[in-house]
Amino acid sequence: MGKRSVLSLWIYRALAVLTLFFFGFIIGWFAKPTQTKTEHHTESSRFLKEFLDEMKAPNIRQHLRKFTRLPHLAGTEQNLKYATQIREEWRYFGLDSVDFVHYDVLLSYPNKTQPNYISIMDALGNEIFRTSLEEPVPDGYGNVSDIVPPYSAFSPKGTPEGELVYVNYGRTEDFYQLEKQMGINVTGKIVIVRYGKIFRGNKVKNAILAGAKGLIMFSDPADYCADGVQTYPDGWNLPGGGAQRGNVLNLNGAGDPLTPGYPAKEYTYRSKLEDGIGLPKIPVHPIGYHDAIHLLKNMGGEIPPNNWKGALNVSYRIGPGFINDYKNLTVRLNIHTNNQVTRIYNVIGKIRGAVEPDRYIILGGHRDAWVFGGIDPMSGNAVLHEIARSAGSMLSKGWRPRRTIVFASWDAEEFGLQGSTEWAEENAKLLQDRAVAYINADSAIEGMYTLRVDCTPSLHTLVYDITKQIDSPEVGEEGMSLYESWHKRDNWTNNRDAPRISKLGSGSDFEAYFIRLGIASGRARYTKNKKTERYSNYPVYHSVYETFEIVDRFYDPSFRRLEAVARVRGGLIFSLADSLLLPLNVNEYAEALDKYALSISQIAQRHPEEMQKYGVSFDPLFSAVENFTVAAGDFHERLQTVDKADSLQVRIVNDQLMYLERAFIDPLGLPGRPFYRHVIFAPSSHNKYAGESFPGIYDALFDIGNAADPEKSWDKVKRQISIAAFTVHAAAMTLTLPA
Amino acid sequence: MGKRSVLSLWIYRALAVLTLFFFGFIIGWFAKPTQTKTEHHTESSRFLKEFLDEMKAPNIRQHLRKFTRLPHLAGTEQNLKYATQIREEWRYFGLDSVDFVHYDVLLSYPNKTQPNYISIMDALGNEIFRTSLEEPVPDGYGNVSDIVPPYSAFSPKGTPEGELVYVNYGRTEDFYQLEKQMGINVTGKIVIVRYGKIFRGNKVKNAILAGAKGLIMFSDPADYCADGVQTYPDGWNLPGGGAQRGNVLNLNGAGDPLTPGYPAKEYTYRSKLEDGIGLPKIPVHPIGYHDAIHLLKNMGGEIPPNNWKGALNVSYRIGPGFINDYKNLTVRLNIHTNNQVTRIYNVIGKIRGAVEPDRYIILGGHRDAWVFGGIDPMSGNAVLHEIARSAGSMLSKGWRPRRTIVFASWDAEEFGLQGSTEWAEENAKLLQDRAVAYINADSAIEGMYTLRVDCTPSLHTLVYDITKQIDSPEVGEEGMSLYESWHKRDNWTNNRDAPRISKLGSGSDFEAYFIRLGIASGRARYTKNKKTERYSNYPVYHSVYETFEIVDRFYDPSFRRLEAVARVRGGLIFSLADSLLLPLNVNEYAEALDKYALSISQIAQRHPEEMQKYGVSFDPLFSAVENFTVAAGDFHERLQTVDKADSLQVRIVNDQLMYLERAFIDPLGLPGRPFYRHVIFAPSSHNKYAGESFPGIYDALFDIGNAADPEKSWDKVKRQISIAAFTVHAAAMTLTLPA
Repeated sequence: MGKRSVLSLWIYRALAVLTLFFFGFIIGWFAKPTQTKTEHHTESSRFLKEFLDEMKAPNIRQHLRKFTRLPHLAGTEQNLKYATQIREEWRYFGLDSVDFVHYDVLLSYPNKTQPNYISIMDALGNEIFRTSLEEPVPDGYGNVSDIVPPYSAFSPKGTPEGELVYVNYGRTEDFYQLEKQMGINVTGKIVIVRYGKIFRGNKVKNAILAGAKGLIMFSDPADYCADGVQTYPDGWNLPGGGAQRGNVLNLNGAGDPLTPGYPAKEYTYRSKLEDGIGLPKIPVHPIGYHDAIHLLKNMGGEIPPNNWKGALNVSYRIGPGFINDYKNLTVRLNIHTNNQVTRIYNVIGKIRGAVEPDRYIILGGHRDAWVFGGIDPMSGNAVLHEIARSAGSMLSKGWRPRRTIVFASWDAEEFGLQGSTEWAEENAKLLQDRAVAYINADSAIEGMYTLRVDCTPSLHTLVYDITKQIDSPEVGEEGMSLYESWHKRDNWTNNRDAPRISKLGSGSDFEAYFIRLGIASGRARYTKNKKTERYSNYPVYHSVYETFEIVDRFYDPSFRRLEAVARVRGGLIFSLADSLLLPLNVNEYAEALDKYALSISQIAQRHPEEMQKYGVSFDPLFSAVENFTVAAGDFHERLQTVDKADSLQVRIVNDQLMYLERAFIDPLGLPGRPFYRHVIFAPSSHNKYAGESFPGIYDALFDIGNAADPEKSWDKVKRQISIAAFTVHAAAMTLTLPA
Repeated sequence: MGKRSVLSLWIYRALAVLTLFFFGFIIGWFAKPTQTKTEHHTESSRFLKEFLDEMKAPNIRQHLRKFTRLPHLAGTEQNLKYATQIREEWRYFGLDSVDFVHYDVLLSYPNKTQPNYISIMDALGNEIFRTSLEEPVPDGYGNVSDIVPPYSAFSPKGTPEGELVYVNYGRTEDFYQLEKQMGINVTGKIVIVRYGKIFRGNKVKNAILAGAKGLIMFSDPADYCADGVQTYPDGWNLPGGGAQRGNVLNLNGAGDPLTPGYPAKEYTYRSKLEDGIGLPKIPVHPIGYHDAIHLLKNMGGEIPPNNWKGALNVSYRIGPGFINDYKNLTVRLNIHTNNQVTRIYNVIGKIRGAVEPDRYIILGGHRDAWVFGGIDPMSGNAVLHEIARSAGSMLSKGWRPRRTIVFASWDAEEFGLQGSTEWAEENAKLLQDRAVAYINADSAIEGMYTLRVDCTPSLHTLVYDITKQIDSPEVGEEGMSLYESWHKRDNWTNNRDAPRISKLGSGSDFEAYFIRLGIASGRARYTKNKKTERYSNYPVYHSVYETFEIVDRFYDPSFRRLEAVARVRGGLIFSLADSLLLPLNVNEYAEALDKYALSISQIAQRHPEEMQKYGVSFDPLFSAVENFTVAAGDFHERLQTVDKADSLQVRIVNDQLMYLERAFIDPLGLPGRPFYRHVIFAPSSHNKYAGESFPGIYDALFDIGNAADPEKSWDKVKRQISIAAFTVHAAAMTLTLPA
C-alpha cells in the first residue's frame, strides 16, 4: 500500500468511527425522553386497580366499630381523643405528615344543670306537661355518659310563652300561605313546624321574619319513618322518643360566627356575640313525635290543607292556640343553652406529590358527631380512614402520586361546618392557587338502594369512569359493575342515558371549598330509592339511635356498600392526583350551563308580559353560554394535540382545567351573602339544600309574583342576569390562550 | 490467519463498533438537555441589551409630536382617531395581535352652550364679577377647536350661592382645624381651597362631609409655580389664566361609576345615576390664580395660620364671607356639566409568549388627555409606543419572549381610571391566574432632575439591575449609568445606600391591577428634585399649556430623559417576560413588611396608655412578619437549588413568585371599600396619594385622638391588626411547599 492508500484507509476508518459515533449520538439523543417523568404515569392505571382492591369491607367495619363506641361531640375531650387516635393511625399508615390544626370557635351546649324542655302552662302558671329531657338510650349504651340531649345548637336562652301556631315545614311558601291565604299572623306566637324539606336554620329564619317569639321543630313519622319498617332497634325507623339535634344558624358559609372571613386563631379579632353571624334571635327546640302529639292534639283553629298533614293521629289544626277546654293553656320554651368559644381540632394528613407537590387534591370529612355518629359522620370517617390506609399501603409499594393528596378529619361540622371553613379561610390563598379538587367524606350511607353522586359537571366523566371499575356491592349482582347497578336503578332519563348525577347543594364541609373558593368538588354515598322512599334524610338522623349497630344490622351488614363508596371516593382522589392530564371535562360543564340557563329562564317565563314591560331578556346569558360552549369545544380539541412529553404544555392545560371552576366565583359574592360566591352553584336563599342553579337570578325571581314594586324586582333580575352572563363569559376566557 | 483469528477479529470489530456506538449514544443522551428551551434563555441577556439600544430619543420625540397636535379627550372622535392610529402602527411594528376593546362608561362634559363659571353677586342678584370661561390658548394652537374649558368632571349641575370660606388644601386636618380650633362651620357655605397635597376628589368629599354646598379649587402660585421660573411659554410655570381640570370622583377603585365590579359591556346592568359610585353631591369648579385673587382679596374673618397662606398678594382670610364694604356680596357657582354614558376604546396589543403563553406581563398607559396631553399622558404614550416598536423590531430579528407581553393604550383614565379598570374587570379571572406583573406607562416626565420609581418591594432588585444597564441621560454624565446618576441625586439615606424607591400610591391606571387584583406593579418616570422643588405635581398639570413644546423646549430638549424612562419601563417588561426565573425578590418584600409594621405601630404608640387600657398589641403583626421573613429566606435558599433544566420545577417556583403579590389581597376589601383590597398597599382614606402602608390599620388609627367612643375606635384598630397579621401569615404560606 502506498502512503496515499494508508491515508485513505485511516480516513475511511475515521469516517466509519465518526459515522458510528454519530448514529449512536443521534439514537441516544432521540431515545431520551424530553420528560423524565413519563414512565411514572404509564403505570398509574395498574396502580389504580391495586389501590381500589386494597380497600376492604372488613377494615371499614373495624374502623366504624372503633370510632363509634363513645359520644364525640365537637369540643369535647372524647372528640379530641379520636382525633389523636386518627393522627397516630394515619402516621402509622405512612402518610408523609399528619398534624392537628386547631381553631377557637363559637360552639353551643345545653346547660348541664338546667335542662331544656317545652311545657304546657295553665292560666296559673303551672306546668301541666313537660317534653322529655332526653331520648331513651339504646341497649348496650346504658352506661355511657356525655350523651347530649336533643337541642337546637345556638338557640339563645329564654322562656318565651304564648299560643302555638302550626306552620307545616316552616318554608317560605308555608308562611306565605299562612299569612296571605289563611290570614294568620304569628307575631308574638310560638311556632311549631315539622322537620324536613329544607334546612332547619331556614325554618328558624322564616319564623323570625314572620315575628314568632319561639320555634319548636318535631320529627313527624310521615317524614322520619319508612313504610313497613320497625323503629330502632327492631328496624331503622325513628322511635317516638327520638329527636333531631342540629344547629339553627344562618351562616351562609361564614364558618365561625365570630370570625367571618378569617381563621379563628389565637391572634384573630372576634366580634361581640351580638354581632355574630347567623345567630338566631329566638329560642328554638327540637322534639320527637311522642312529645309532639301532646302539643298538637288539642290545637284549635283551621283545618289545614292536606299537604300540611303528617302521619300522627292528630288534626294538624293550625291554631293559634288550643281548642275549647284548653283555650287558656299556653306553650312555653325553657331554653338555657350556652354559647361558648371552644377549641376544635382538624387532623390534616398529607402525601406529598412526586412531580407537582404544589397541586392539591383534598379528601375531607368531619369527625364530630351529635352522639355516636354511627352514620353521620363515622360511616364516612371509616371510609376516609380506609382510603388513607390504602394510600399509605401503596406508598410502601413504591407508588407516589404526581400531585399532593390532603386528608382532612374536620371538627365541628355539626356546628356550622366550622372546622372545614376555618381551615379553608386560613389556607384560602394556597387553595386558590393550588387546589385541583375537593372530595367530601361525610356520611357514606343514607339508604340501601344505590349510589348517589353530587358533583360539579366537570367531574361527571371521571365519576362514570371510576364506577365502571368498581364491582356492584349488591347481592345477586356479581360480575356487574357499580356503574351498571347504579345505571339500572337510577337512570338519568330526562337528560341522558346514564346514571343520575345531581348538583352539589350545601350543608356539608365542601361548602367553603366549592361555593366560596371555587374548587371542583364532589361527594358520593349510598342512598335510598328516591322514587319510593319519601322520608327526609334517613329516619334516625342526628338522634342517639345512629349507632354502629344500625349500620351493621340494617344499612350494610356486609359493609360492601361502604366498600363501594370508599372505592368511589378513593378512586376519584387517586385519578385526580395521579393522571398526567387532569380528568376534568369542560364539555360537560358547557352542557350543564346550557341546561341551567334554559331552566332559570323558564322560571322567569312564567311572567312573559312583565318581562316584556320591564325589558328583561335572557339573551345575554344564552349568548354567554354559547360562547362558553365554543370555547370548551376548542379547548377539548387543543387537549388532543398536547404533547404529553412536554411537561410545561401539560401544566398549562392542567392549569386551565384547574382554574375553570375558580372562574365561576364572583369575588363580591351573592347579594348580601359575601361567602356564597359561586355564581352557578351557590345555594339559593329559598331552597337551601336542593339548590337551584344561578342562585342570584333565582333569588331575584323568587318572589316576583308578590313583589311590592315589580319594576324594582325585575331590575334586580336584570342585574343578576348580567352578572351571570359576565361570569360565564369570563369562564370561557380562561379556556383560551393568546392567539 | 486461522478461522479463530478471523472470528476474533470480527468480534473485536463488532465490539469496537458497539463501543463506539455506545459512546455515541451515551454522549448523545447526556448532551441533550432535558429542557429543550434552555438555550433560548442563555441568549436573553444579549437580547436585552439589543432591545434597550433599540429605543431612541428621536423616535420618542416623533411619537410625542404626532400624538399631541390635537385635543383628545376621552370619548371624543379625536381620541378614537389616535386609537386607530396606534392600532395600525402597533400592527405595523409586528405585534401578534392588536385590537380595540370598548366599554360604555359614564363620562362628564361641560355643556357647550351654557358655560360653567363662578360669579360674585350683589344683594340685588347682579353678577359683579365672573371668572374666565377658558384659558388663554398658547401660541400656535389658536385655530384648534374642541379645547375643553377647565372644569371639574362629574360635578353635578347647580347654582349654589353663599358666603365663601377658605379652607387651605381642604384636607381632613384643615377641616378639623377650621371647625375645632377656629369654630367655623361651613354648612350652607361655598368653600374655596387650593389645589395640592391630596387628590382633589378627597377635597370634595371633605367639603361635603363638612356641609358645604359648593366647592371652588384654585391653583396657588405657592403650589404651581417654581422659584425663578417664567410662566409658559417663556418657562414652564403655570400662567395666571391657567387652571387644573380633573375629575372629582371618590371611586375608590370602582371604575365606571354605574357598573362597579363588572365590565361596562353592552349586556351589563347599569345602576341609576343616583346610585352611581363616587359621584359628588355638590357643584365644584376649578379656577386659576388670576381669578382666585378676585374671590380672595376681599374676604373677611380670621387671619389664617401661616401654613394656610399661599403666594398671592391677598390676606388668605378665612371668612365666612367678605369684609366691610363687601359684606352683602355672595359667591355663586354656575355649573351645567352633563354626565353621559359614552363609548371608550382601549387598544390592546399582544406578543405571544414562546414558552409560557399563559403568563402575562402588562405595560399599560392611558391615551386620553384633558387637552393636548403634552406631558400627561402623551410623554408616557410616546415611550410606550417606542417600547412597542422596539419589541416588534426584536421579533423581526428572531427573538420571542418566554411569556406573553400585553401592551395597553387605556382610555378615560382622566375620568377615574375607567379604561384600565373596566379591562381589569373583564379579564379579572385571567389576570388572577396568569398575570406576572403590571408596569404603568402614564406621564414619563414631571421634572428635570432624576429618575423616580414607585413599585412593589419584590421589584426593587430588578429596577436596580436594569438601571445599571442604562446610561444617564444627563449632560456631563457621559459614561455614568442611570443607576449611578439616580443614586447620586436621590439616595435612600434613611434606609439604605441605594437610590430611593417609593411605595406605589394610587391615582393612575395601575390601581385595578395592583390594589384590586394583587399583581406586582411598578412605575418609573423622570422627576423633580423633591428637596428643593416644593410645588405640587408639575405647574401646568392638566392645563392647556401641557403641549409638545413644553417638553421639547424645557423638560427634555434632547429627549434623552424620555429615552432613559423608555429603557427602564421596557427593560422591566423585557426581563419579566424573558427571564427563566422570574426576577422578583421575596426577601425585599420581607424587609419592606418589617419596616412598615414598625412604622404603623409607631403611629399607634402615640397613645401608649390607651393601648394598654384597651389591650391593643402589634405583636401578632410583628410575629407574622417574622414568620414571613423566615419563609422568604427559606424560599430564597430553595431557589438556589432549583434545577433550571427542569421546566416544571422552574414553573413551580415562578408560580410562587407570581402569586406572592396576590396573597396580600383581602377578598373582602378594606372596610367600606370593596375594590381596595391590598392589605399592605391600598391607599388610606385619609392620605390618598402618598399612601400609608397597612391602610386598614392606618384608617382605624387616624382619628383615634378625636374619637367619640375610644373603646370602639381601638376595637377597630385591633380588628385591622388581626387582618393584617393573618394576611402576612397567609402570604408566608404561599412561599412554602408541602414537606
